[in-house]
Amino acid sequence: MNGARSVVETLLGAGVDTCFANPGTSEMHFVAALDQARGMHCVLGLQENVVTGMADGYWRMAGKPACTLLHCGPGLANGMANLHNARRAGSGIVNIVGDQATWHRPHDPPLAADTEGMARTVSAWVRTCSAAADAGRDAAAAIEAACTLPGQVATLVLPSDASWDEGGEVAQMHAPTAQPVDGHAIDNAARVLRSGRKVLLLLAGAAALDEGQAAAWRIAAATGATLMADYVIGRVARGRGRVQLERVPYSTDLAIEALAKFADVVLVGAKAPVGFFAYPGKPSRLVAPGANVHVLARPEQDGVAALRALAEALRVPAAAIPDPGPRPEVAGGAPTPEKLAQTVAALLPEQAIVSDESVSYGRGFYKFTHAAAPHDWLHLAGGAIGDGLPVATGAAIGCGGGRRVLSLQADGSAMYSLQALWTQAREKLPVTTVILSNRKYAILVNELKAVGASPGPTAMRMLDLANPELRWPELARGMGVEAATASTMEECASLMKQGFGREGPFLIELLV
Amino acid sequence: MNGARSVVETLLGAGVDTCFANPGTSEMHFVAALDQARGMHCVLGLQENVVTGMADGYWRMAGKPACTLLHCGPGLANGMANLHNARRAGSGIVNIVGDQATWHRPHDPPLAADTEGMARTVSAWVRTCSAAADAGRDAAAAIEAACTLPGQVATLVLPSDASWDEGGEVAQMHAPTAQPVDGHAIDNAARVLRSGRKVLLLLAGAAALDEGQAAAWRIAAATGATLMADYVIGRVARGRGRVQLERVPYSTDLAIEALAKFADVVLVGAKAPVGFFAYPGKPSRLVAPGANVHVLARPEQDGVAALRALAEALRVPAAAIPDPGPRPEVAGGAPTPEKLAQTVAALLPEQAIVSDESVSYGRGFYKFTHAAAPHDWLHLAGGAIGDGLPVATGAAIGCGGGRRVLSLQADGSAMYSLQALWTQAREKLPVTTVILSNRKYAILVNELKAVGASPGPTAMRMLDLANPELRWPELARGMGVEAATASTMEECASLMKQGFGREGPFLIELLV
Repeated sequence: MNGARSVVETLLGAGVDTCFANPGTSEMHFVAALDQARGMHCVLGLQENVVTGMADGYWRMAGKPACTLLHCGPGLANGMANLHNARRAGSGIVNIVGDQATWHRPHDPPLAADTEGMARTVSAWVRTCSAAADAGRDAAAAIEAACTLPGQVATLVLPSDASWDEGGEVAQMHAPTAQPVDGHAIDNAARVLRSGRKVLLLLAGAAALDEGQAAAWRIAAATGATLMADYVIGRVARGRGRVQLERVPYSTDLAIEALAKFADVVLVGAKAPVGFFAYPGKPSRLVAPGANVHVLARPEQDGVAALRALAEALRVPAAAIPDPGPRPEVAGGAPTPEKLAQTVAALLPEQAIVSDESVSYGRGFYKFTHAAAPHDWLHLAGGAIGDGLPVATGAAIGCGGGRRVLSLQADGSAMYSLQALWTQAREKLPVTTVILSNRKYAILVNELKAVGASPGPTAMRMLDLANPELRWPELARGMGVEAATASTMEECASLMKQGFGREGPFLIELLV
Repeated sequence: MNGARSVVETLLGAGVDTCFANPGTSEMHFVAALDQARGMHCVLGLQENVVTGMADGYWRMAGKPACTLLHCGPGLANGMANLHNARRAGSGIVNIVGDQATWHRPHDPPLAADTEGMARTVSAWVRTCSAAADAGRDAAAAIEAACTLPGQVATLVLPSDASWDEGGEVAQMHAPTAQPVDGHAIDNAARVLRSGRKVLLLLAGAAALDEGQAAAWRIAAATGATLMADYVIGRVARGRGRVQLERVPYSTDLAIEALAKFADVVLVGAKAPVGFFAYPGKPSRLVAPGANVHVLARPEQDGVAALRALAEALRVPAAAIPDPGPRPEVAGGAPTPEKLAQTVAALLPEQAIVSDESVSYGRGFYKFTHAAAPHDWLHLAGGAIGDGLPVATGAAIGCGGGRRVLSLQADGSAMYSLQALWTQAREKLPVTTVILSNRKYAILVNELKAVGASPGPTAMRMLDLANPELRWPELARGMGVEAATASTMEECASLMKQGFGREGPFLIELLV
């Protein structure tokens, strides 16, 4: 068998059975191998950032990596922003990038680029396969790297001759062993929690899902500690039966305020909070000056096991998670963020997934959605806009289409990767998108004001999206997705119900 | 003044008066400086690959660089594919990338990335400004690097504190001096051309424009040498009054055939032709085995001056460029590449610009368009699909909207950067786009067949775009561009005339 076939069989043997792809000429032997092998579900994205964002969303819900198939150099570059987001979310991706044949590359053909150099900027693991005989082994190593906690971007660069040459050998991946829970860290956290000081347990990674929350809640209920989710987080389990977590706020000022009262911050899979951006005269670190930061579990350790061990060390009893009260009612009248959140909480189906790239509009959504049916909420962890639609798409695929996805999406960032809608139509995915159409880069208008300048005409030309207006229903229909416009919450609720009842995707343009 | 203002004033002082932008929070002080300064034309692109592609198209027609304004790390990544293309086309761009404040970066905030590492993969020159006092000087160096022959991507990374701190100083750029024509290279080329052997003069860069062609034609007419344009080329002057150049074919087999008869190849701004991709058993180098490759002018030298010096050394007389015969008539019936090319030749206005990303469909367009009115033809030099629409947009801006642009655009590659249509509508640019809608990645279907495999259902799922169909008129209207569909050449010609008569943009979906 050739090298490409050995890679495909190695992937399938390790349970990697979904391939998000946008191949080019140098990947044609790989495509042929995908054709010959059985069992790989191949999903086309019409631009590479859609491909990598789908792989990220897939990992978050499937809990195992998909592979990508990208075209050499510039094709990888197109997908790097969402690989950056995946890196920050702790998502595992087997990122396969075709490349020039080993003996052709020295001639510097037009599409030759520093593929490895590009890959290193977004990957935890990079290897260029040098021969077909190594391709299977290299693929196994890539899968292992992708599955290493918390999940990593592992880039395998596959020159075309390593694909087409004979001598490929299927390899077995060795499941990475999680780093053990650190007894000293448990003891230290127990000591801190018994100190009587104000303690924050800051959750990220798996610690923010069901089991982690349950263990964390036992600890918090018994010790009086506060629980929060990190701002930089890929997925939070939410709704009835889950802890009413808030996230560390995006805004530096609000985050400093929210963290000011804690003398001790215990990190569970999270990093110590840092401002998204610097501002003159404001600090980089968001915890209170003089606060102690403790690590219970690093992102590459098992945070859930650490929380369980901590609960045991503290001998805390079982504790029921408080009920959030009744579901809100559907809201009416002119749209506001609060009303949209209430309406989402009212209508969200059981076990839905929310892909949230609402950017500025949605910063208060959490407060109004605790009483929704149980659901998972997916966030833009790396801040590179353009992951909402692809993550929604990949998440739907990661659940085999069995769970409803609601994509809450700002208009400016939606334009970064709108091609994802086409894949939603092609795969007939149960994704309902709500475009929050404010026709500007609202976050930047605010940031510019924060600089002390009121935006003049030149600046507004770079911040407004109103001239011409983006017409989302036409854009969606152009890619095969049915769509409609809402300008009141009643219309939005009615369309949302309609969307949730459909087999395939639907898009609502909400004029806000 | 702050650092940002010193950069803006340095740019304006050097004549860099157009800024293609998609800023983020870390660029807000730069945006404020653009507001305060006078004379910078700021053009928003809704995704960074549109921004960088526009800057490329601008350079090709304006003959001077524009600047870009991109957001840190991932924002740059989104624009890298078209920076790769610009690099291969020899286009000068002052690529300004905002970044985390110098004292914030060590805290690894979520959007921090290896911005310099990314930039190096597509830039000839990279510098990170370390303080506001240096910002003006660094900007001047960037402009100088961008203007160095043949035109280079110069990336200036500008941390936000280097923008907002006071102490900025405006700097003057020093125009780079062209490397002198090499007397030995002239003598050698003259000797080769007098040898009586079959000689090819291979033109790229400025040598493929008016004056270069005129000098090259004098040499060819007197010596019997053949003239060709390189495949890797940004712009070719074409139509009545210009040499009927053909390009080295894209296909390895056809290129080898076209070059087989030449014992000597003289490079004028071109590199020795290399296959776009490797194939098993086929060579990388496309010139005949044993052929001598000579350099008259390297890409970083003045190819036009070298051609003139060579004509003088050979004492060749003036020679009129042959007339291409009458303009073709508009074609009718079902669309074919030949009929489309004829129709373009029949209808193209004087001094039009063709932005060609027709990929597989348009490989034979040259043969049928020699008798068109004088025009410039812009090519995808780097092979990273997605530059056609942005280059068309930037080219229109580079001519101040005074020249008509025809964008010949394959559908698959159009989806990579369709957001460019919005900028065309916003800037009311005279761009007529013809989408060649074959609803597949036709080039890849052929490449897969070349691999020896007939595509099965898994492969076709990654190569066809028909399910669902892309509806280009709806996509265009969604971004404010009027559009219509043509399925015959008569309809296409009628719509093309209509498009050429409009003040703003127009899109024709041609079902091929």
